[in-house]
Amino acid sequence: MSFTLAQRAHKMNPSVIREILKVTERPGIISFAGGLPSPDTFPIDAMREASERVLSLDGRAALQYAASEGLPQLREWVAQDLKKQGMQVSPDQVLITTGSQQGLDLVAKVLIDAGSKILVETPTYLGALQAFMPMEPDVVSVASDDEGVITQDLRAKAPDARFIYLLPNFQNPTGRTMSEARRAAVARVAQDSGLPVIEDNPYGDLWFDNAPATSLSARLPEQSLYLGSFSKILAPGLRLGYVVAPKTLYPKLLQAKQAADLHTPSFNQRVVAEVLKDGFIERHVPTIRALYKRQCETMLQALDKEMAGLGATWNRPAGGMFLWAQLPAGMDAVQLLPKAVDKGVAFVPGAAFYAAQPVKETLRLSFVTSTVDQIRTGVAALAQTIRENLPR
Amino acid sequence: MSFTLAQRAHKMNPSVIREILKVTERPGIISFAGGLPSPDTFPIDAMREASERVLSLDGRAALQYAASEGLPQLREWVAQDLKKQGMQVSPDQVLITTGSQQGLDLVAKVLIDAGSKILVETPTYLGALQAFMPMEPDVVSVASDDEGVITQDLRAKAPDARFIYLLPNFQNPTGRTMSEARRAAVARVAQDSGLPVIEDNPYGDLWFDNAPATSLSARLPEQSLYLGSFSKILAPGLRLGYVVAPKTLYPKLLQAKQAADLHTPSFNQRVVAEVLKDGFIERHVPTIRALYKRQCETMLQALDKEMAGLGATWNRPAGGMFLWAQLPAGMDAVQLLPKAVDKGVAFVPGAAFYAAQPVKETLRLSFVTSTVDQIRTGVAALAQTIRENLPR
Repeated sequence: MSFTLAQRAHKMNPSVIREILKVTERPGIISFAGGLPSPDTFPIDAMREASERVLSLDGRAALQYAASEGLPQLREWVAQDLKKQGMQVSPDQVLITTGSQQGLDLVAKVLIDAGSKILVETPTYLGALQAFMPMEPDVVSVASDDEGVITQDLRAKAPDARFIYLLPNFQNPTGRTMSEARRAAVARVAQDSGLPVIEDNPYGDLWFDNAPATSLSARLPEQSLYLGSFSKILAPGLRLGYVVAPKTLYPKLLQAKQAADLHTPSFNQRVVAEVLKDGFIERHVPTIRALYKRQCETMLQALDKEMAGLGATWNRPAGGMFLWAQLPAGMDAVQLLPKAVDKGVAFVPGAAFYAAQPVKETLRLSFVTSTVDQIRTGVAALAQTIRENLPR
Repeated sequence: MSFTLAQRAHKMNPSVIREILKVTERPGIISFAGGLPSPDTFPIDAMREASERVLSLDGRAALQYAASEGLPQLREWVAQDLKKQGMQVSPDQVLITTGSQQGLDLVAKVLIDAGSKILVETPTYLGALQAFMPMEPDVVSVASDDEGVITQDLRAKAPDARFIYLLPNFQNPTGRTMSEARRAAVARVAQDSGLPVIEDNPYGDLWFDNAPATSLSARLPEQSLYLGSFSKILAPGLRLGYVVAPKTLYPKLLQAKQAADLHTPSFNQRVVAEVLKDGFIERHVPTIRALYKRQCETMLQALDKEMAGLGATWNRPAGGMFLWAQLPAGMDAVQLLPKAVDKGVAFVPGAAFYAAQPVKETLRLSFVTSTVDQIRTGVAALAQTIRENLPR
């Protein structure tokens, strides 16, 4: 072709997950693969009423160009809402983004040079890797356990790193949550090393029994960026997220935002601001928690029942959308996937989530997209697939 | 601060125009500065009906994650609509973007390395410069006249350039349109030189009396990218645009899109697809053309009347939203602006639109945001400001 690609374009790859989803979206497949929130949780009636009110009362403003920073009333709502994370932020520090994926893109543009060392968890969110890679960083994985990154390895790798990217609550892909002790220790290392923290928290509100510990950003207000999202508490199809930044860094993120898409759709911002009025979230989110808790318990019960004796293991998330499983030693989740799809069930092999040295036995299971009946049927089909393909 | 900025972040600057707009949005100022479409043209009732229908009939899909490529029915509409530009494209070549500003961002990521030579018109669209600059190109201005870039200079500068960025119809900032002869000549140079063309066409539908000549992309289907927008024919607050790419380049733009914001809001895409059904655009756009033509004529009549004998000059656009004026030789539009604001009228100094060597006498006047009465009053105030500040 007559186009010459930028070097970074050669490092872009199709999303493994989106490619998998195309295969698994065939009718009849029970999919534990997608990260799709349950549409049963979407506040369709509230959206209808809010859209009608916004277009009736504010139609001209809702359809016009708007400030790159975001809608003032939405920025105020976010600043207020973050108090429950232990954060004291001004609305001036809130930048509304087109989904929190855009927040990752802006972070990459503003903080990553070609060859910059950046740190991530093992494993980490694939979408963050995809947002960071075009800026050509040197991505270094920090060893992690069930409570998050291991502090000793973090301390060793912190020097000269531009930042560490962390998803402390019900992580994608593992569903794990950083303990209070680990947060305190990570914050100490960050302070000692002057290591900025990019804290991504799309799932924090989706706890089952207890809210997670205070955010890292509450402990590191001047050296953290916090990314939030309305995708999991309202609906992802609105593409509404936000970044909270120290005042010193905010202007650069804002300039990157202007260049990226001028501003997040004013219509969507106004409709959501209207939905959020009068404490809607306090009534709505508990219904999501209850649903996802029930679905998670169903999956865990099914795993306990169907996988007994197979040698597979899995964790027990305290919230969120995913759990993380490990096949019997020697099995490769990538090779198992087509066989599972043949039996009518899909998952995401864990390998895609490792910046380096994937653990081939791992897989991510979403418990939120399928009904409880589908979860039982799907787990049984997955167990049968494993059984038929056990290493000799 | 503890953050280390990427090199490119030092090259980001606040939008001059957005900074100006902040000053000029004071109540009582007649603004010819903004590029805001007239809200009188926003199809609020159609949006209300479409939002209601989409949420009633398709609420779960409208609020869910969706394909990065965009909504199939919207991609089909675009492919069909482009036939009037002389383009034969498949819906598979259409990538829906979060405004056409995002199209520019994706182009930059996929085609620009640090130091890559890229060509622009003189002057050029500021938002494109802002989207391109973070990827650190070497921006080279091609000499231009009232019909667009001058072919001889283009041929001289084409070697080794990654692309030329062109806005052929009712250009922002000048309002000028490339003639048929110039398009044919530019296409020939592009073919001879293997120079890709990035064709930006947000205003093409806003012609007053005659549709502009066939697009460059129709002449260069394999070596052009075409950017379109719903901002000027429906409403900018929806942030809906698109890129049309040759099939060889499409996958890289799609990967950059996934990393940038996963997908453009599904809700907005579905609402617009619903609005567009049954030929709405064919009924709606003529009303925008008629309004903008009347406002442009009012501004030209006011300029003829108020500026007579002052030594200022201006062009007579055949469509779009802007006209381009030149103050008497020696006057500096940047210095004139605060004095004009004191008299209650604002504009954008032309200097911001030059990649190099600004012509300090130039200014951009938008005729679409103000009413005809405001246009008459504002032009009189602007003429008075010039009169009082004429060079001795």
